[in-house]
Amino acid sequence: MERDDFIREPVKHIRIDGKLTVDQLIQQFRNSGSFGAGRLSAACDIYERMLRDEKCTVFLALAGAVVPAGMRSLIADLIRERRIDVVVSTGANMVHDAIEAVGGHHYKGHWFVDDYVLYKYHIYRIYDVFVPEEDFTKLDYKLVEIYDEIATESNGKSLSSNEFTWELGRRLSDSDSILRAAYEAGVPIFLPAVRDSEFGFAYWLHASRKTSGKLLLVDAFKDLPEIVSICKRSPRNGMMVIGGGVPRNTVQSAALASKKGMDYAVIMTMDRPEIGGLSGSTLEETVSWGKVKSAANKIMVIGDAMIVFPIIVASVLERLGEDFKRAPYLKPKGIGGI
Amino acid sequence: MERDDFIREPVKHIRIDGKLTVDQLIQQFRNSGSFGAGRLSAACDIYERMLRDEKCTVFLALAGAVVPAGMRSLIADLIRERRIDVVVSTGANMVHDAIEAVGGHHYKGHWFVDDYVLYKYHIYRIYDVFVPEEDFTKLDYKLVEIYDEIATESNGKSLSSNEFTWELGRRLSDSDSILRAAYEAGVPIFLPAVRDSEFGFAYWLHASRKTSGKLLLVDAFKDLPEIVSICKRSPRNGMMVIGGGVPRNTVQSAALASKKGMDYAVIMTMDRPEIGGLSGSTLEETVSWGKVKSAANKIMVIGDAMIVFPIIVASVLERLGEDFKRAPYLKPKGIGGI
Amino acid sequence: MERDDFIREPVKHIRIDGKLTVDQLIQQFRNSGSFGAGRLSAACDIYERMLRDEKCTVFLALAGAVVPAGMRSLIADLIRERRIDVVVSTGANMVHDAIEAVGGHHYKGHWFVDDYVLYKYHIYRIYDVFVPEEDFTKLDYKLVEIYDEIATESNGKSLSSNEFTWELGRRLSDSDSILRAAYEAGVPIFLPAVRDSEFGFAYWLHASRKTSGKLLLVDAFKDLPEIVSICKRSPRNGMMVIGGGVPRNTVQSAALASKKGMDYAVIMTMDRPEIGGLSGSTLEETVSWGKVKSAANKIMVIGDAMIVFPIIVASVLERLGEDFKRAPYLKPKGIGGI
Amino acid sequence: MERDDFIREPVKHIRIDGKLTVDQLIQQFRNSGSFGAGRLSAACDIYERMLRDEKCTVFLALAGAVVPAGMRSLIADLIRERRIDVVVSTGANMVHDAIEAVGGHHYKGHWFVDDYVLYKYHIYRIYDVFVPEEDFTKLDYKLVEIYDEIATESNGKSLSSNEFTWELGRRLSDSDSILRAAYEAGVPIFLPAVRDSEFGFAYWLHASRKTSGKLLLVDAFKDLPEIVSICKRSPRNGMMVIGGGVPRNTVQSAALASKKGMDYAVIMTMDRPEIGGLSGSTLEETVSWGKVKSAANKIMVIGDAMIVFPIIVASVLERLGEDFKRAPYLKPKGIGGI
Repeated sequence: MERDDFIREPVKHIRIDGKLTVDQLIQQFRNSGSFGAGRLSAACDIYERMLRDEKCTVFLALAGAVVPAGMRSLIADLIRERRIDVVVSTGANMVHDAIEAVGGHHYKGHWFVDDYVLYKYHIYRIYDVFVPEEDFTKLDYKLVEIYDEIATESNGKSLSSNEFTWELGRRLSDSDSILRAAYEAGVPIFLPAVRDSEFGFAYWLHASRKTSGKLLLVDAFKDLPEIVSICKRSPRNGMMVIGGGVPRNTVQSAALASKKGMDYAVIMTMDRPEIGGLSGSTLEETVSWGKVKSAANKIMVIGDAMIVFPIIVASVLERLGEDFKRAPYLKPKGIGGI
Repeated sequence: MERDDFIREPVKHIRIDGKLTVDQLIQQFRNSGSFGAGRLSAACDIYERMLRDEKCTVFLALAGAVVPAGMRSLIADLIRERRIDVVVSTGANMVHDAIEAVGGHHYKGHWFVDDYVLYKYHIYRIYDVFVPEEDFTKLDYKLVEIYDEIATESNGKSLSSNEFTWELGRRLSDSDSILRAAYEAGVPIFLPAVRDSEFGFAYWLHASRKTSGKLLLVDAFKDLPEIVSICKRSPRNGMMVIGGGVPRNTVQSAALASKKGMDYAVIMTMDRPEIGGLSGSTLEETVSWGKVKSAANKIMVIGDAMIVFPIIVASVLERLGEDFKRAPYLKPKGIGGI
Repeated sequence: MERDDFIREPVKHIRIDGKLTVDQLIQQFRNSGSFGAGRLSAACDIYERMLRDEKCTVFLALAGAVVPAGMRSLIADLIRERRIDVVVSTGANMVHDAIEAVGGHHYKGHWFVDDYVLYKYHIYRIYDVFVPEEDFTKLDYKLVEIYDEIATESNGKSLSSNEFTWELGRRLSDSDSILRAAYEAGVPIFLPAVRDSEFGFAYWLHASRKTSGKLLLVDAFKDLPEIVSICKRSPRNGMMVIGGGVPRNTVQSAALASKKGMDYAVIMTMDRPEIGGLSGSTLEETVSWGKVKSAANKIMVIGDAMIVFPIIVASVLERLGEDFKRAPYLKPKGIGGI
Repeated sequence: MERDDFIREPVKHIRIDGKLTVDQLIQQFRNSGSFGAGRLSAACDIYERMLRDEKCTVFLALAGAVVPAGMRSLIADLIRERRIDVVVSTGANMVHDAIEAVGGHHYKGHWFVDDYVLYKYHIYRIYDVFVPEEDFTKLDYKLVEIYDEIATESNGKSLSSNEFTWELGRRLSDSDSILRAAYEAGVPIFLPAVRDSEFGFAYWLHASRKTSGKLLLVDAFKDLPEIVSICKRSPRNGMMVIGGGVPRNTVQSAALASKKGMDYAVIMTMDRPEIGGLSGSTLEETVSWGKVKSAANKIMVIGDAMIVFPIIVASVLERLGEDFKRAPYLKPKGIGGI
């Protein structure tokens, strides 16, 4: 590159002189183009491209307490409108979805409290969100019931994690529920670490009671061929990643195993790369593996997903307009699959 | 507190079903109330309250490369509309303001480049912003000229850092300039570490040439009584802090020395408290010193100020509406003071 | 508390005037007692107490690329000497252990490289560690072989994740292997997200070939009652946590489900609490759940575990001396259990 | 590079089987070579090389509360033994040094306290360190006395920040004091933001009382030619940087202004680059400016300096041995200069 190639496009300074829509602000961020503002505007562009690409399957990876904190309806709506085609989540997020589906709540709390007082009151704290123990307990009872039912119906046949979430969604009637929305929309929800959540504790109850005489059997590996097949059959794949951990790794590994590599990638995280963990690893690093294509549209936004993700969604929905309809490339095929 | 006091207000989930203004999104964040979204909405509320409080002086502390990255016009406009009454900045930010005022530019670049190539091309990198060396050089010439002029005019009398920025603003004609806007609006700009920037390098040139026979003399301590007096005379004080370092510390110390303590405080930072530095210290910690009142409206937003600050401004300007005019409590008194 | 209670013990300043052992340095950190140094010395004290407590079961949670980066032998030795009683890990760490056990290697690389070049060379990057694809492939072949074998032997019976790692350890002969050491020492290794790793990809190969006619069946939930039972039967429990994610959550949830709560807890992480994820949540927060006791010896060290953990181990082994032998409270009972 | 060039040197796993000296542990870190362990061992190597290079001037940049937290004696000793040739610090660190020099103390406290209680008790908190207000007050009295004295002696002549610290060091008798050690060893201490600290508040007292009839005059810019000249006259320059902010920027700018560029650079920080601030900027970025040479020995260690810096010092002193004496290349020339 010549010298002039480096200094072509001046930073345009942000100007706010009245009411702005979210996307108008993001357009200003694009014009400035720098630091977090540049990254965030790029993330909006990439998600928009994913949605406009008729041959792209969009994965959403969910780690961190995104449901307790208030993104439940947002995600349910994205699923229902098919702005997300596949979800890979921590168990906990779907537990929290189910807690509300069976009548429980998350409460606005505070982070600076005496946790021993909460402990004695049987209130669990998730940073500044409180959940009463009885809402977990209520869910436990419901889950044991559902597990007994599934165990009876499946009759020894094992389920994959996405079949498991499909069975849950089928049994929940709350229209704001992610699990329900996914069931209705034919969007598979994979829980690669399903056991590491209240779903596991409920299993423990279910197993110790053995009411139905039969045990729920979720095959730890069974969902893997399914998610790999989705990547394989999609002409293009994109991922929206909230946080890191197992959900991010599972989506990326599916892209690798299918020898496709992601075509679009947005990661929202606060983790950093230098300590070497997957969660903070750069999108450049994923290129070495083939998890994301070298030529992919990709950006990592460093920030709190509770701020960043709603902004991206608001900006892109504004761009797409009310008449935009998105038809998924892969059609639902029932029992947790597409 | 009774148990029920902890679980009173359920988290309301965010819902985005079409075009939203920035403040409409922030209202959703307030309803969810959790994690970064809750903090950000609280920051908007607090800045709104500062502006509506007719007896509050609003301090803006600027650290980090906020001007190179695109917040120059935003800040200049806030000053002009008196939504900021006092600025405390790193030297560098005002250097970058002056670079553009004398015709230089900042350019959109990339962080993943070969810096040795940039070095050979005489292009300086600030993360993903590029600045050509000649734009610094052009400023250097201008500054030496200005320093000679100030040295002659002041005739051995020392300047405080805010008198120094006032003298600069007086000589810059660019209406988008922060220095100019502050000069015109009578908003003092304090640079407690003025020497640690290109202003210092220009001094070195000025001092080695001694064209005018006289030397600019900025008294390191002289601005301190001035900023303390501002706090003292203001019935209430508020601070909007971008980053940490000297600007944050200077504002907080003024609140301490004046025995007032801040009544409102918003800090935007990515620093964390556990390593013990001032930049990441919590607002609770500042209460122990008396820098911020225990009863103050205060919040720390963990995030990139390039994303967070424009959102706060957009949200609050939308709330205030076009007809809102704010008159500063302390009236400008010329030569860098209020 | 009276005023004097707050200002009793002055910070003693660190002094280094010659050769120091690791624990001598840590004793200086204890005397200064502040910021990271204080936290690190507290972590050493707590791990020492865990090891000297004859009725304590010590859990090690492993997230992040600790094995690729060079902690394989360290952890294997800790297991062999029973300074760790139970391991909960990401799948990946055990994959990397197995890669070396079957003759592969990790290589010192660099983080600032062209990842597309690596991609074309079939070299995978983990921050500044490189792994050639063929070392993964070699492992895949071996794993498929082992899976076929296990599938035949287990004959439709499902395995828990710890039975799975026990079967692996049984078949690996490398004495530096964590899997092997655990097998020999009767230390269970739980992989709650076993599928989210090369173990999953190998399953996919195994399943698509069906050489043996039978399929490996790992029951996602089956390890849960086992780990809960370990907590329940231990008079006291302690955890050493590297990183967050599923391993940390699994250990903490076992402490909760068993209604014991951890008596000792050391967490090494770079994650921060404000974004609300489990990985960065404070030890105070865990108290509200009952995962860690309010009165527990507990500390979170903010830092890179590759630096922090070896220091803790070196400091504590020095304190314990060569003659110290630790007998686990719970005795091994074969097939992946204690 | 050929493929084989990327995979030459296997990671050697850390092994701890008994008492280790600090440098023995660091040698293990070098053998593993990865993540933070690799960076930390590289930092030790680079500091060792600085000290063995007879033509290198070693700068120490100090930001963050390193003195309150326990590194006062460590730094004083490094200065006395001339393992540091020039110090650039925040004002606050030298304030805290002076507090102890006049009989005050810092106390081990806790971060989780009610700061309003501390406020009422007149105890200031610095994360988990407490300082009673009266120790600041005691220093204020002493400083006003000293300022009066300097004002009288200097008789209207301005001081540079390093002359100011030299005058302080001259008047303090505590042999553990950094200011005193620097005065005795002829090591200049620059405080580019001297005013942003209790030194500023004491100036305010001094100025409002005007006991001596004369005012201390510290010229904000005067130290700049002095530090640039040091870089210029040194055949080689190296920097050990704790934290970021003004101290880091001042040292780097001196290297730039002198057209030398640093030959050695170690930075210890927790800041990250993506938000664009100087404090988190990479060493690669500094190369674009010419602040650090492209070919320099350089590394950034991501971690708490309270842990990292003592380890580096201990490791390097062990390597150098007791007989090692270092003679500075630039000889002291009195009144704060070399």
